[in-house]
Amino acid sequence: MTLPLRIGLAGLGTVGAGVIRLLADNADLIGRRAGRGLVVTAVSARDRGRDRGVDLSGIDWVDDATELAGRDDVDVVVELIGGSDGPALTLARRTLGGGKALVTANKAMIAHHGKELAGLAETGDVALRYEAAVAGGIPVIKALSEGAAANRVSRVYGLLNGTCNYILTRMEAEGLDFATVLAAAQAAGYAEADPSFDIDGIDTAHKLAILAALAFGTAPAFDAVATQGIRAIDKVDIDHAAALGFRIKLVGLAEMVDGKLFQRVHPALLALGHPLAATAGALNGVVIEADPVGRLFLEGRGAGEGPTASAVVADLIDIARGNTALPFGMPIADWATLAPADRDSRQGRYYLRLTVADRPGVLAELAAALRDHGVSIESLIQRPSQADASAIVVMVTHLTEEAALLASLAQMAASPSVNGAPVMMHILDL
Amino acid sequence: MTLPLRIGLAGLGTVGAGVIRLLADNADLIGRRAGRGLVVTAVSARDRGRDRGVDLSGIDWVDDATELAGRDDVDVVVELIGGSDGPALTLARRTLGGGKALVTANKAMIAHHGKELAGLAETGDVALRYEAAVAGGIPVIKALSEGAAANRVSRVYGLLNGTCNYILTRMEAEGLDFATVLAAAQAAGYAEADPSFDIDGIDTAHKLAILAALAFGTAPAFDAVATQGIRAIDKVDIDHAAALGFRIKLVGLAEMVDGKLFQRVHPALLALGHPLAATAGALNGVVIEADPVGRLFLEGRGAGEGPTASAVVADLIDIARGNTALPFGMPIADWATLAPADRDSRQGRYYLRLTVADRPGVLAELAAALRDHGVSIESLIQRPSQADASAIVVMVTHLTEEAALLASLAQMAASPSVNGAPVMMHILDL
Repeated sequence: MTLPLRIGLAGLGTVGAGVIRLLADNADLIGRRAGRGLVVTAVSARDRGRDRGVDLSGIDWVDDATELAGRDDVDVVVELIGGSDGPALTLARRTLGGGKALVTANKAMIAHHGKELAGLAETGDVALRYEAAVAGGIPVIKALSEGAAANRVSRVYGLLNGTCNYILTRMEAEGLDFATVLAAAQAAGYAEADPSFDIDGIDTAHKLAILAALAFGTAPAFDAVATQGIRAIDKVDIDHAAALGFRIKLVGLAEMVDGKLFQRVHPALLALGHPLAATAGALNGVVIEADPVGRLFLEGRGAGEGPTASAVVADLIDIARGNTALPFGMPIADWATLAPADRDSRQGRYYLRLTVADRPGVLAELAAALRDHGVSIESLIQRPSQADASAIVVMVTHLTEEAALLASLAQMAASPSVNGAPVMMHILDL
Repeated sequence: MTLPLRIGLAGLGTVGAGVIRLLADNADLIGRRAGRGLVVTAVSARDRGRDRGVDLSGIDWVDDATELAGRDDVDVVVELIGGSDGPALTLARRTLGGGKALVTANKAMIAHHGKELAGLAETGDVALRYEAAVAGGIPVIKALSEGAAANRVSRVYGLLNGTCNYILTRMEAEGLDFATVLAAAQAAGYAEADPSFDIDGIDTAHKLAILAALAFGTAPAFDAVATQGIRAIDKVDIDHAAALGFRIKLVGLAEMVDGKLFQRVHPALLALGHPLAATAGALNGVVIEADPVGRLFLEGRGAGEGPTASAVVADLIDIARGNTALPFGMPIADWATLAPADRDSRQGRYYLRLTVADRPGVLAELAAALRDHGVSIESLIQRPSQADASAIVVMVTHLTEEAALLASLAQMAASPSVNGAPVMMHILDL
């Protein structure tokens, strides 16, 4: 009889309690699939007294989570504390450095310290697994590092933040503005009290950096991700995008351009026929474009107790089985150092929205700003603003270099006829 | 330095040549991800003289494929001969029985002999992998057996045959009839000269039996799959389905019903908002419904050289890494014996199409046949046939037991007013 895999669990929030519950609820099934039992021997969390609705009897309580790394009755530590640094990182370093396996759902930590932690895992010949860190219950880490292991990935992109997708979906479905839906999402528990990690795109950027590292065999580089969130999106943008045959989504995208790595998180327009355009509500979706497999699309629940616990326990089962894949699918020594791709020369179509004074000559001024930088317009809509005496101008450009577009925008923004910052979004013709 | 994994490859058709090509093209990348080289040492195929556009120099040629199982310079055999029995099965038995790993793309063999082969693999403690057998490049075997390993699966279903999906997509997009599109598909190489394996649903049933075995921890049972193909689908069905908000797809579906296993392949109506309704052309799509992960959706290319080779080589990389998962995710001793679920008591909505004589009283006769068995109608369209003096009647039922619906249909079919066999399709409200 094989010995059980003994787990030390740090963090008993929604996901931590969910892992305990899943290990108990599906214990028989998990044991059969893992080839051995999975037993939580010790836990650590901030508040010992809180009732989490799960049975902790027979499990040792440890006040200092970092002690889990040193316990003789722990084979693998599950880190669900969160935060890129602090106690989570200390625990991760001690666990891997001490020769124990680590499973984590901590996207910020992997995005910022993935290389160091992968190095510790490699040196100690122990597992570092983080399926739950990206896209919750969707096994996208496994799909990239194992399922598509024989492929040369050219592009990976997707909707990686359920909160943003929920907000954008409700804005469109109910014709509501951003602030109203955000408040409703906060009230319903779909958005944090401080929502900036989600709505400013930081969470998506963490996840994208991890996917890019896996896809392209390089270190996760969060700082190289150009990140823009969804605060500036107005319902008029959603309406105009729809009228033009598009839907606005917060997209994280990484791709290779002439041997350089391009990474960006941004609200973008996707054609209604694109699979990600149909990824609605709190769902996540990921597209992998690779040779020779072609385009793979994966969709599922990206957050919450069940999906995240599913991913954490899948990692534990892999470790119990002895699956020996390296943390990022290949040894660090084989990682490429990839320069960031130049944004200025990037070609694309753009959606622009400006609020302008409703008087003669303004349109000519906008047209001149575009002409001066060689940007040509595919379609244009001007209509009076609902709110005041200004006018709203929405434009879609033909293919143009990003630098030219930005120069045009700067010229327009400097005009006294233009009120507020112009809104610019990328059209992803993928 | 780790020794390379030495491969004996049987079958040099499109996929076999694709595997050789992929191993050569992406050799560096594959070596980094596998942690060792993957080297083909011996091949076997029918016609030694044929030019397959790949470099076979330095690879031993073996006339009898079964000899690959006994070669000292082969660690793993890749079986790409095809066919549920015959040389493929002989080779598989000898390979696994002789203590070597086996990778195969052979859905028919796994669907029919999966239990025996998994037993041989388990006894010999060697790998048996078949990612390429289901849904081509989509890593759905891995998603079920590893990614969702902690979950209790309730249902797995999808579009598993690219030929059928291609035909149905073109019938809808171009308003063509089945025979015309089939002939075009054959001319373009998308359908076999003898297309019955595809269009009669047998290929889908093979794949479904494999997915069901993995999902529910039981032996693949091809004979338990109720199978119906797409020959009877007329363009009037596609038009009417569209008018009602549905798209017709050939769906393989397996689910647990009161502890029993239901498995069926059938043309079915899916609401246009369902992700599988958007899975177009030769693409495959699979939905996994499981607790606690929820609904996972995977889409990609289900056949062809690139996607299939991608899956075969992913299996080889797993073996090279020492990934030890059992062939069906758990030991045979733990498999459940699942009785087939009763079809008669199954509840569902149905689409019916009848061609009837255009004379008074016929509609009353049809209505009586439904009333006599307690089937109630949600909507009905009658219109004159384009072809002759008959009329076409299309009906959608409310939820009803399958037995009652079939009894109604039998009563209608027996009427002299009804011409030809009534067409009945399930509406999948999933």
